[in-house]
Amino acid sequence: MAITVIGSIAIDNIETPFNKTGDILGGSASYFSLASSFLTDVKIIGVVGGDFNKKHLKVFKDRSIDISGIKTEEGKTFHWAGRYGYDMSDPETLATELGVFSSFKPAVPHGSKNDMLFLANIDPDIQFNVLQQMGSPKLVALDTMNFWIEGKKEKLMKVMELADIFIINESEARLLTGESSIFSCAKAVLKSGAKILILKRGAYGATMFFENKFFMVPAYPLENVIDPTGAGDSFAGGFLGYLDNTGDMAFENLKKALVFGNIMASFAVEDFSVSRFASIKADEIKDRFRKFREMTYFEEL
Amino acid sequence: MAITVIGSIAIDNIETPFNKTGDILGGSASYFSLASSFLTDVKIIGVVGGDFNKKHLKVFKDRSIDISGIKTEEGKTFHWAGRYGYDMSDPETLATELGVFSSFKPAVPHGSKNDMLFLANIDPDIQFNVLQQMGSPKLVALDTMNFWIEGKKEKLMKVMELADIFIINESEARLLTGESSIFSCAKAVLKSGAKILILKRGAYGATMFFENKFFMVPAYPLENVIDPTGAGDSFAGGFLGYLDNTGDMAFENLKKALVFGNIMASFAVEDFSVSRFASIKADEIKDRFRKFREMTYFEEL
Repeated sequence: MAITVIGSIAIDNIETPFNKTGDILGGSASYFSLASSFLTDVKIIGVVGGDFNKKHLKVFKDRSIDISGIKTEEGKTFHWAGRYGYDMSDPETLATELGVFSSFKPAVPHGSKNDMLFLANIDPDIQFNVLQQMGSPKLVALDTMNFWIEGKKEKLMKVMELADIFIINESEARLLTGESSIFSCAKAVLKSGAKILILKRGAYGATMFFENKFFMVPAYPLENVIDPTGAGDSFAGGFLGYLDNTGDMAFENLKKALVFGNIMASFAVEDFSVSRFASIKADEIKDRFRKFREMTYFEEL
Repeated sequence: MAITVIGSIAIDNIETPFNKTGDILGGSASYFSLASSFLTDVKIIGVVGGDFNKKHLKVFKDRSIDISGIKTEEGKTFHWAGRYGYDMSDPETLATELGVFSSFKPAVPHGSKNDMLFLANIDPDIQFNVLQQMGSPKLVALDTMNFWIEGKKEKLMKVMELADIFIINESEARLLTGESSIFSCAKAVLKSGAKILILKRGAYGATMFFENKFFMVPAYPLENVIDPTGAGDSFAGGFLGYLDNTGDMAFENLKKALVFGNIMASFAVEDFSVSRFASIKADEIKDRFRKFREMTYFEEL
């Protein structure tokens, strides 16, 4: 029982209307692995540059995440800088420097070949390459973004054919399928082979499509959002972490997994970087699950 | 058991990226009364001009709505023209002509004085005036908009002090209170005297605050949204209609009422004007309630 994630480990600079950070740990694999580490065992495949501060690795080790698949290569660590407006959504990208990520040739460790696999939002060529190296992954989940939908759609479609679960932003699903209704988006995506589609709606929650069933949740409401970065990857971490933990793909369990995704995303945005994951207390996750059920539950007629 | 609504009866011109209408029936009192007419008895207080086509009155009569409080005055009926973009939210206002509404002096009929009262989004001076004429209304609910928050805040606050339920857009609650978190908004609004606050989030649903309790729902998802106009007033109609029908102000019943609001809004946007209300079949409302519960329900841990 374990998940392997391939994705970015990044050094971010984040600006919000209320704050500005220095070099902080970011990247899809970082958020995903820390979120899922509360629910199952996690292994990261990734790359950092010679400039990567080793103190960041301690964050993963403290959560017992297997980082033996993180290579250090000559060059600079992937860097992203972004600025959020007052609505705290859709950041403006100020800088993207791929660094060692641009020439990254991931090697899937033997011990990962039959794991659940999360292909975080990276170049579809890399995602495809990783898939080729897998043995019999228990389940493959996939994220992507506008940039790859516009630039490498053909390869992305090939990856999609091999994925079981597709977790993307609602706006990206529209871009990918050319459909405006979420139901038409879902039909088009599920035709490509995936069994489950999850559409992320940022501060407005998520929807899930599975066979002919449909489930939707608002986002977990928070008093104070500090930094939305990593919410989507933390969501995926909570969702897949719970699925891996329970091994139950029935719809009622998929729903609970989605709620765990929601909740891990709610923690991610309560601090800069992955800092909030370091301070989650023993019962806090279950407590949010219980509270979230209370605030969304209503009786039958 | 009845609700009286004071609000606009309008002639609208609506443009969407897919369609353009001629002169169609609109206005907050129109949407509200038709939506709530499926759940309780409704009376309208309003005004139209000499140009108002009497065929529109038949729409109300067909739903047994009491229109004896609609005055006809010399001049033009209130007119609004708006244009929606591809995201089908936040329309651009192309024209607002108050017409007979600008000098409207509403008279509350004797039979309405102890009803549940909905003060739809109109001039707070008119809302206050109506409140002064009421006897012992069973319950007072209030809507407003940016324009009045910015222009007549003082009078609006006086109306708020007399209202039990406040139903406004989330963005307007932020403008009104100067708070960004919805929890802080709620604290500020509920301090003014209202017992229940409902924040409407357009295509993303609604949240409700009552005592120290909190409830949130996504919007009822639709394959095809034709015209979002009137969704908020139809929501209020469904919510208050169910409350008036059941007479039960317990939190579990307030939740169901919110879902009825959601569902009546979902009908409103499926056609231009109030047309969809004419074609709702006997079981369609309960059927959407049941479906909505299925798509949002998840089990305890």
